[in-house]
Amino acid sequence: MNAIKSVSAFCHSLRKPKSECRFFLWSVMIALSLMFIVTTSCSNAELEEKLEQVTNRLGILEDTQDIRNLHHAYGYYIDKCLYEDVVDLFADDGEVHFAGGIYRGKEEGVRRLYVGGFLQDFTGGKPGPVYGFLLDHLQMQDVIHVAPDRRTAKARFRCFMQAGAHETSPSAKAAREQGQSPMRWWEGGIYENTYVKEDGVWKIQVLNYNPLWYADYETGWGNTRPFFDQTEAPKLYPDNPRGPDAPMDSPPAIWPNTSIVPFHYMNPVTGKPLTMESDWNSESNDE
Amino acid sequence: MNAIKSVSAFCHSLRKPKSECRFFLWSVMIALSLMFIVTTSCSNAELEEKLEQVTNRLGILEDTQDIRNLHHAYGYYIDKCLYEDVVDLFADDGEVHFAGGIYRGKEEGVRRLYVGGFLQDFTGGKPGPVYGFLLDHLQMQDVIHVAPDRRTAKARFRCFMQAGAHETSPSAKAAREQGQSPMRWWEGGIYENTYVKEDGVWKIQVLNYNPLWYADYETGWGNTRPFFDQTEAPKLYPDNPRGPDAPMDSPPAIWPNTSIVPFHYMNPVTGKPLTMESDWNSESNDE
Amino acid sequence: MNAIKSVSAFCHSLRKPKSECRFFLWSVMIALSLMFIVTTSCSNAELEEKLEQVTNRLGILEDTQDIRNLHHAYGYYIDKCLYEDVVDLFADDGEVHFAGGIYRGKEEGVRRLYVGGFLQDFTGGKPGPVYGFLLDHLQMQDVIHVAPDRRTAKARFRCFMQAGAHETSPSAKAAREQGQSPMRWWEGGIYENTYVKEDGVWKIQVLNYNPLWYADYETGWGNTRPFFDQTEAPKLYPDNPRGPDAPMDSPPAIWPNTSIVPFHYMNPVTGKPLTMESDWNSESNDE
Repeated sequence: MNAIKSVSAFCHSLRKPKSECRFFLWSVMIALSLMFIVTTSCSNAELEEKLEQVTNRLGILEDTQDIRNLHHAYGYYIDKCLYEDVVDLFADDGEVHFAGGIYRGKEEGVRRLYVGGFLQDFTGGKPGPVYGFLLDHLQMQDVIHVAPDRRTAKARFRCFMQAGAHETSPSAKAAREQGQSPMRWWEGGIYENTYVKEDGVWKIQVLNYNPLWYADYETGWGNTRPFFDQTEAPKLYPDNPRGPDAPMDSPPAIWPNTSIVPFHYMNPVTGKPLTMESDWNSESNDE
Repeated sequence: MNAIKSVSAFCHSLRKPKSECRFFLWSVMIALSLMFIVTTSCSNAELEEKLEQVTNRLGILEDTQDIRNLHHAYGYYIDKCLYEDVVDLFADDGEVHFAGGIYRGKEEGVRRLYVGGFLQDFTGGKPGPVYGFLLDHLQMQDVIHVAPDRRTAKARFRCFMQAGAHETSPSAKAAREQGQSPMRWWEGGIYENTYVKEDGVWKIQVLNYNPLWYADYETGWGNTRPFFDQTEAPKLYPDNPRGPDAPMDSPPAIWPNTSIVPFHYMNPVTGKPLTMESDWNSESNDE
Repeated sequence: MNAIKSVSAFCHSLRKPKSECRFFLWSVMIALSLMFIVTTSCSNAELEEKLEQVTNRLGILEDTQDIRNLHHAYGYYIDKCLYEDVVDLFADDGEVHFAGGIYRGKEEGVRRLYVGGFLQDFTGGKPGPVYGFLLDHLQMQDVIHVAPDRRTAKARFRCFMQAGAHETSPSAKAAREQGQSPMRWWEGGIYENTYVKEDGVWKIQVLNYNPLWYADYETGWGNTRPFFDQTEAPKLYPDNPRGPDAPMDSPPAIWPNTSIVPFHYMNPVTGKPLTMESDWNSESNDE
């Protein structure tokens, strides 16, 4: 009971009645405790806010990783003519921009392109790889940016492709019988895609794939004949049953013409657009 | 001392003795303080739990990054015939699944394959690159998934390889003297690996590499002769001193046959397996 | 007021005067409360520290992602001869180590190499791609390590390049008129870069690019003639108006010689350097 004695002594020195003095001391102690509690509690609010920020930054990295996985999964599906599985990667209102045309709607344009078009052309309608048809569709060099609200994202990827028929494949034999070369090529291209998160799942909003060069199999890109001109307006659906719903506004030119697929991001150091301010889409330089 | 006066006045209005009244007021104040403290403390428990969750999610991203680095490091070692360093990347009970065979145990099967096999074949037993032998083993297109308990992980990667002898290399000269072409090829393949974390370090548990096509150097994948059939049961160790310990259950077929290396993950959007439900491993379509 | 009665009864059982007893009980309650508060507050300090650590680990992953984006952006700029934009990615005291030479200072050596050299050679001084000149500069296989203080970082990448003139390009025509082959090649190389964070922005400190093989376009790496020897001391600036400021100490040998570009990291499993302890830079094995 030393504390009680000390209090008595202290109160005595103040020349106050004990009970009033004690009351004063208790008040001080309680006040200090409350200040302490309030401080603690404020610090909690700060901690909560910091944790919220950290959680959001973490979420952006997780989103980035999800989008990388999504695109790489897309690449592996394309390799093996798994076009139904490719279509499933799109949002309902998803689009493909490809070869000068825009294909709209997961179950309409997107399915028309992959299942109505490629699946018929490459495997005769049967999902999965077939004998003697190669379609290696290497994906790499991601530059991914998730919007601050984590509901949309943009990403650039690059594709390096080897595709076509083995000499022993039915399609190569058919081609030779008609006096033609089997369909075989190498290809390089750039994706500039957008993504959307729906119910916590990232989906492709716009798959914007821009093949920039094709190489003849026998002689390579150095001697390749002009393959096709995707700046020429494509024949549209439904007149063309496999055609796009609309033409692309400004499709990039194809090798040996050259062009820049516009970047979704600024220069990562300066934060500014390209120093070259001209119209990238007219960068095709016909002689 | 206004507070004391207020209390006295309040007590007077309650018509209670001062001391009892004060006791009541103190009780109320302490009770409120304690409620406040308990609230604060609850919020801390919540914060702690949230932080725990964030830490775990962060850990999964770090693991993902570690596994990417681990596999990419493996690729750089393979480039340069650094097979001792490759073996060191495996868990003690690690395995290699390759070319139809399973090699078991870091110091047994794995070492037998890399140091007993490749190192002898490619450099004559000397670690490190040798004159005129190229082995560029490009790694890309990771799809990595870490288990929720962060003790195991699975990952798909792709390899694009260029390998073989320069015309001026000793092995090319030896081949020509025997009327043969120098050993040179291009190759594409898929990894579906598993990883394990031991004492905080990620190691290769199963390196499952599936070459899917080889290309003759002169004529490419379009005209390549059937290279070898890894679905044929390999000759096992110890009868074959460099052989695997067991055959793979269902090795993928090799180009111009085609096959799908099973995916360790579901469709990232639907969460379902491939729409094509047939047996991937019988997808080789001999004519 | 049951609590008051209980206290009275308790004090009675202690045979103490009520006021002193109450004082004792209050002391106990306040002490417990304070202990509780202090505990809570300690836990907050712990939480803060944990959150600090988590924030730092998160920052390292963000830095890793920033550096991946930075290098991949560099690759996309190089593809399209956007050399001004490439120069902008460097720190003021940045350097390029390339082809046996060191180019020092963003606005001096780095600009001399890219804008004074490549831009003149490849496009005649006009930024952006030109007709019939391909420069696909594929970037992949990152191994990135950020320093614990998050101010510097090191990264290894790999490049696989296809570059040169289409047969219809002006430069190919000019070459043929002089009885020469158009300039066309494939190339494989390794980056071992360092990065620095200035004002929160990651920049290239040292771009150390080591081409390891060049392939003649017509006959490939298997038959390529020795391209050039970057171990030969380069002619320096200003005697050579496009030359480097200094020679590299130990440039890697070029195919069909072979060499290892030193790794900035230890074996990710053992934490040790390569088992092969010899001098990597003398690994060129001339016959």
